[in-house]
Amino acid sequence: MKLWDKGFSTDQKIDHFTVGNDRELDLLLAKYDVIASKAHAKMLGSIGILTETEAQTLCEALDRIGLQIEKGAFTIEDSFEDMHSKIEYLLTEDLGDLGKKIHTARSRNDQVLVAMQLYLKEELTQIKKSTQELFDLLLQLAETHKQVLLPGYTHLQIAMPSSFGLWFSAYAESLIDDLYFVDAAYKIADQNPLGSAAGYGSSFPIDREKTTRDMGFANLKYNVVAAQMGRGKVEKATAMGLGALGHTLSKMAMDVCLYMSQNFDFIGFPNELTTGSSIMPHKKNPDVFELIRAKCNRIQAVPMELTLITNNLPSGYHRDLQLVKEALIPAISDLKACLELMHFSLAQIQVNPNILDDPKYDYLFSVDTLNELVQQGMPFRDAYKKMGQDIEAGNYSPKRDIEHTHLGSLGNLSLDGIQKKMEEL
Amino acid sequence: MKLWDKGFSTDQKIDHFTVGNDRELDLLLAKYDVIASKAHAKMLGSIGILTETEAQTLCEALDRIGLQIEKGAFTIEDSFEDMHSKIEYLLTEDLGDLGKKIHTARSRNDQVLVAMQLYLKEELTQIKKSTQELFDLLLQLAETHKQVLLPGYTHLQIAMPSSFGLWFSAYAESLIDDLYFVDAAYKIADQNPLGSAAGYGSSFPIDREKTTRDMGFANLKYNVVAAQMGRGKVEKATAMGLGALGHTLSKMAMDVCLYMSQNFDFIGFPNELTTGSSIMPHKKNPDVFELIRAKCNRIQAVPMELTLITNNLPSGYHRDLQLVKEALIPAISDLKACLELMHFSLAQIQVNPNILDDPKYDYLFSVDTLNELVQQGMPFRDAYKKMGQDIEAGNYSPKRDIEHTHLGSLGNLSLDGIQKKMEEL
Amino acid sequence: MKLWDKGFSTDQKIDHFTVGNDRELDLLLAKYDVIASKAHAKMLGSIGILTETEAQTLCEALDRIGLQIEKGAFTIEDSFEDMHSKIEYLLTEDLGDLGKKIHTARSRNDQVLVAMQLYLKEELTQIKKSTQELFDLLLQLAETHKQVLLPGYTHLQIAMPSSFGLWFSAYAESLIDDLYFVDAAYKIADQNPLGSAAGYGSSFPIDREKTTRDMGFANLKYNVVAAQMGRGKVEKATAMGLGALGHTLSKMAMDVCLYMSQNFDFIGFPNELTTGSSIMPHKKNPDVFELIRAKCNRIQAVPMELTLITNNLPSGYHRDLQLVKEALIPAISDLKACLELMHFSLAQIQVNPNILDDPKYDYLFSVDTLNELVQQGMPFRDAYKKMGQDIEAGNYSPKRDIEHTHLGSLGNLSLDGIQKKMEEL
Amino acid sequence: MKLWDKGFSTDQKIDHFTVGNDRELDLLLAKYDVIASKAHAKMLGSIGILTETEAQTLCEALDRIGLQIEKGAFTIEDSFEDMHSKIEYLLTEDLGDLGKKIHTARSRNDQVLVAMQLYLKEELTQIKKSTQELFDLLLQLAETHKQVLLPGYTHLQIAMPSSFGLWFSAYAESLIDDLYFVDAAYKIADQNPLGSAAGYGSSFPIDREKTTRDMGFANLKYNVVAAQMGRGKVEKATAMGLGALGHTLSKMAMDVCLYMSQNFDFIGFPNELTTGSSIMPHKKNPDVFELIRAKCNRIQAVPMELTLITNNLPSGYHRDLQLVKEALIPAISDLKACLELMHFSLAQIQVNPNILDDPKYDYLFSVDTLNELVQQGMPFRDAYKKMGQDIEAGNYSPKRDIEHTHLGSLGNLSLDGIQKKMEEL
Repeated sequence: MKLWDKGFSTDQKIDHFTVGNDRELDLLLAKYDVIASKAHAKMLGSIGILTETEAQTLCEALDRIGLQIEKGAFTIEDSFEDMHSKIEYLLTEDLGDLGKKIHTARSRNDQVLVAMQLYLKEELTQIKKSTQELFDLLLQLAETHKQVLLPGYTHLQIAMPSSFGLWFSAYAESLIDDLYFVDAAYKIADQNPLGSAAGYGSSFPIDREKTTRDMGFANLKYNVVAAQMGRGKVEKATAMGLGALGHTLSKMAMDVCLYMSQNFDFIGFPNELTTGSSIMPHKKNPDVFELIRAKCNRIQAVPMELTLITNNLPSGYHRDLQLVKEALIPAISDLKACLELMHFSLAQIQVNPNILDDPKYDYLFSVDTLNELVQQGMPFRDAYKKMGQDIEAGNYSPKRDIEHTHLGSLGNLSLDGIQKKMEEL
Repeated sequence: MKLWDKGFSTDQKIDHFTVGNDRELDLLLAKYDVIASKAHAKMLGSIGILTETEAQTLCEALDRIGLQIEKGAFTIEDSFEDMHSKIEYLLTEDLGDLGKKIHTARSRNDQVLVAMQLYLKEELTQIKKSTQELFDLLLQLAETHKQVLLPGYTHLQIAMPSSFGLWFSAYAESLIDDLYFVDAAYKIADQNPLGSAAGYGSSFPIDREKTTRDMGFANLKYNVVAAQMGRGKVEKATAMGLGALGHTLSKMAMDVCLYMSQNFDFIGFPNELTTGSSIMPHKKNPDVFELIRAKCNRIQAVPMELTLITNNLPSGYHRDLQLVKEALIPAISDLKACLELMHFSLAQIQVNPNILDDPKYDYLFSVDTLNELVQQGMPFRDAYKKMGQDIEAGNYSPKRDIEHTHLGSLGNLSLDGIQKKMEEL
Repeated sequence: MKLWDKGFSTDQKIDHFTVGNDRELDLLLAKYDVIASKAHAKMLGSIGILTETEAQTLCEALDRIGLQIEKGAFTIEDSFEDMHSKIEYLLTEDLGDLGKKIHTARSRNDQVLVAMQLYLKEELTQIKKSTQELFDLLLQLAETHKQVLLPGYTHLQIAMPSSFGLWFSAYAESLIDDLYFVDAAYKIADQNPLGSAAGYGSSFPIDREKTTRDMGFANLKYNVVAAQMGRGKVEKATAMGLGALGHTLSKMAMDVCLYMSQNFDFIGFPNELTTGSSIMPHKKNPDVFELIRAKCNRIQAVPMELTLITNNLPSGYHRDLQLVKEALIPAISDLKACLELMHFSLAQIQVNPNILDDPKYDYLFSVDTLNELVQQGMPFRDAYKKMGQDIEAGNYSPKRDIEHTHLGSLGNLSLDGIQKKMEEL
Repeated sequence: MKLWDKGFSTDQKIDHFTVGNDRELDLLLAKYDVIASKAHAKMLGSIGILTETEAQTLCEALDRIGLQIEKGAFTIEDSFEDMHSKIEYLLTEDLGDLGKKIHTARSRNDQVLVAMQLYLKEELTQIKKSTQELFDLLLQLAETHKQVLLPGYTHLQIAMPSSFGLWFSAYAESLIDDLYFVDAAYKIADQNPLGSAAGYGSSFPIDREKTTRDMGFANLKYNVVAAQMGRGKVEKATAMGLGALGHTLSKMAMDVCLYMSQNFDFIGFPNELTTGSSIMPHKKNPDVFELIRAKCNRIQAVPMELTLITNNLPSGYHRDLQLVKEALIPAISDLKACLELMHFSLAQIQVNPNILDDPKYDYLFSVDTLNELVQQGMPFRDAYKKMGQDIEAGNYSPKRDIEHTHLGSLGNLSLDGIQKKMEEL
């Protein structure tokens, strides 16, 4: 971007640098600016700053713009700095001076705040829904494959019997934890900032409770300075929610990549989900899962990016906050794609049924045998000594029909309990 | 730490490296290991693995150890790897073979998990309480100083009238958002992992619902693999809660440091809270706030530290997870100290009452004057033009008796509404 | 990105997810793929795997593609996965089977490695050059304004006399430190990885010293596994170099934003570099500097993003590494823009000449007065006591004609020494 | 740390919070404060602020303190804020008023700066030395095991033949890249900041070139504001160097943990380096390597911690910078321990000689067979088709005597070349 060499004027250079990719990102937010503008216009009508007819006329014009946005016909040309100026331009083109009146008792600062929060509420709702769909699939896979045993590892060493039932439903139950953070982020977003104007409110007698109700916010962010401080904060809260999910998806993808290695060979996927080579027929590269892992790892850096941008800035608006959008929005779209691809791919997983037949897994069962001796009354120390001697003497033969019965164990997955926890969310 | 040069044996070197500062940190956790051990012993009694008398005897011995811990008399010598081995040693010393029986159907893995989660529940509760106390103070300061005006800044430029009422209560309302994350972390910690053993459960018919009830967990982490995956995750959740609070405290500390600069001179503190110099009598260094800022900024790195430690590790226990403790625990103690010092210091804040008398703040009031013209019926464009001309001609004189009436504005702080939101937590 | 709803086939979905924005980023790298392909073709000619004529023909065809790239006419359509497949397609279209022969003894893995490293070498060279230009400007500004005094702050409290000469040249000298990291990154990039194929070399008797010479690499990355491990590592090294510069630019931008506040009023910029308002004529928003600060802060997160992507991956190629490109390349372009805008803006800085006339800065000079007494022979303790008494009694009047003579002080900026250090780089 | 409850006075509370663990960390730095104080005293003697005798007397007293430090007898009691006040106290106790004169023309700010930089120079030197020792060991292991083949993985899928020669020397060559960053950090530390006083120099005619020479700094940090800005910056530079090494060690530790898994079984270590269980005789937990991995991952967070502390602070000293010590110093000691343990452990590695005999690795050799056909003149497409058909028909038998001859390949490790690169550092 060697602006100076390209014959741009100073204004163009500065514009290019300061606007950045805001116009592009604003296309995603414009819908919410229209919703908030309608609520604002109605409220101005209700307190007499606009006549009821003026408010009505503005809402109708905003609806027309909303329709354009929905059809993908809304654009932000280079002559406009952002969605706000474009929408105001359209309103003025349509309605003359009335179009300008909508900007009474508000500022671009609270406009962006409210549009972003409405946007985040919708995205967080979608993400929660996709997560729940993935959760459902995982429980279903756990049920389907609950009899198929896997080695359980500690320190990457073969340690104890595990099962696909345990493995799938472990990730399901972990996703619930992540949703606690998604919900926390949602609650932070669900507080109406409109009316905070440039961060210090205004002398107009606006009715903030009305706009709160009209836009469907659960709560009001009362304090106008707090509302402004929400910029960056609500985005970071969202990023922490995304990051929590990212952590779980990334870990599961790591397991998948490992388990697909020929050194494990626990699972497989149809050819269209992997890449390979006809001269190396055993090679099935898990590209989709590697990219889920990488994208989800990168998403976990977003809270830090947002912290770095907002850190140590005194209260009040700073232009720095504009960058918050471009750090967060791609992460939202990446996470949604990862949730979708994870669901799509896992639905086609192929589970190797006879993994534990391999003699290298024989010792897996030794702990259970030991426990059996203990339950039969032999003191633990003696049982342990006997087992060690048997194994050393080659007299140990694994007893493969294991019985684990406690809640959450491989013989008693408690999928209902897990399901219930999700439903309580 | 040039171990090799110091004549240590191999075992000592390895021990020194692998144990690290675990013994020291475990002193904080030992209390919770005792609580969990008691619940475990009772449960073993209830399912017949121990006799009721054995269980009772173990509980009494554990109570004796608990008392020692409470009195600060519990120590972990270098001959013990951690609290678990020391406590087991004490039990065995006290009760002989019975002492060893407590280790049936559990593993150090779920012992650490449950002790850590009990510890975090208590710390998060304390942190929430301290936050609420700070919140109360901030609301009280807002009420006390609600009439005192401040310049409101955008881009660090003087922009609009603000007030100490707005400033104090803005941070109060922001703290509520942070507590949503603290609550999310608490929920994650409030699920009993005991019984997951080494991460794959066991063949003993343990009663996990009983231990859940006895230890006061709201819920069970059912899946044993999920319980194990909680290691690192519950700590990261806590760190995100700490980080959210840290972000708010750090920002307020930045404001304080700025406002104490002679270039602002908005606030002051008694001498014992600042450092100074008798040859520079105006110099009052806000060391306490600078350190709150720095410590709270550093705390915000902890989620990333934990991510780096746990990232891309396949499921199952890895020794890496041991480090999670030493990354989190000092941050908890730092945040608690910051909350305490912030409360202690703000309680003594001195507010300069006549800030806006300085003529450099005259233009602050121009927006309100403009709005007044608009409300009196002059079209915005005309009003704006008139204001610009008046100002240029030197005919503008600021009208200082501003009236902001809407919810959350400086004339209507809505402290009740903010208070109510906190109470709903 | 709700792919499934849009009627895409499985292959399209997977392709969309896995290719990401690689095609777009590859347009920047294609030039370097051509350079490396030419070196590879020549080398194959030199060892007899191609005839000399074949090698020559390939080079000519590659030059034609290079010309297309230079003219901006090179495109990567959706039917091609990346630049490599598009370039090979063009070669084959042009030369038939000969076009395919270029892919002997190499893999896309070492192709990306070498193209990326050539690209980074060029970008790092440009960044170093822009940094040196900014350095030159800063030294020049220091010389121009060396007589203009500023308050020096500690703890944001007025502390000691400083000057614009000190302030400008401090940032100049700091940039030198950052360039040590840029140079380190350059050295890492300046080792030829070509020939490592998929990360394990090949059975072809290739001449890696020849390609090293032909592409102008200072060194060879010998070990083929090490060459592959360079993926992600050379990018992180670059990001650390960018981050070092970002840290300095961001700090200077923070100073600028503060010094432009009406509470400091040390500097100004022409209107086209700020935004304002005609009803608040004193308001000059430093948007450009706020965005430099924010972008440079965000850049400092890139090393962490790259660490998260590559962390805990065992050796050998993983598809995760593809994401490294999209984390780094925008940061390079952002930093270049920041360097350019910083230079462009600072060249127009307006310095307020009479800052220290304000009586609030009087105590600045007290330390110098004290030192003078000491140099005149009064014991320090006595001098300190006398000063304190004079100040308290109102008998202190600042002696403004300060004399600092030591190297690097405000009276002796040592710009030559600083210049010389830069030249030694 | 509930200070208030413990009956501490205000001063004690503030002291406890602000001093933190500075006293403990200062024990490591005191040696360097003495060195710098001696240089300062001599310089004051040379410019006549002290007499030559006074300077000499001070140096002798400082030597006595230095001896105390060396013997571990130096302590910093709670009545002293830090090493500087303790050392000054000792000097005054010893020499009366002369002891105080050493504090002429300096400040604690430049004292800390210079002590920290001297400390870092020594630590970086030691780290470089340990890294070179590890490098030597890796080259030696590569030479010893150069004939032992390993599978090479891409996407964690078996892909190509590799060897222990390649694997060991890959990490050796990678360490060289990391040392470029260590060297960059060293260069930044190797610039004398003494004389910058509180960050704005002083009116004393000090001779900074003399102290630069006397302390063995290669260069002077001329600009006093730049010297002060070095606080936090030199530490971050060091942390980036540590992080670079941490990245490489962590990756190698990940490989080791994976290769020790029974699913790979490529390497082993003597019992005292692993932990195990007699009822699971095959289980060898690689605790040392897991902790190297985790510690080295955590170290990689330190640059971010330092960025968060220093980010967006305007120029000039802030108390925040005190925290920089406690973020960096433990990381230095951790990295040194990791380097030492890695060396100690790898020296005892046991390599499994017959890995590739397992039929699951047969396809590893198919690419080499294909290349052979190509080199014998068969067109690549035909060769590839023939290979695919042979494999499918079961007619493929791996030709295990592979011949890779190019520089850096498994048949030609080029250890000399790698060694030479290290020597050029």
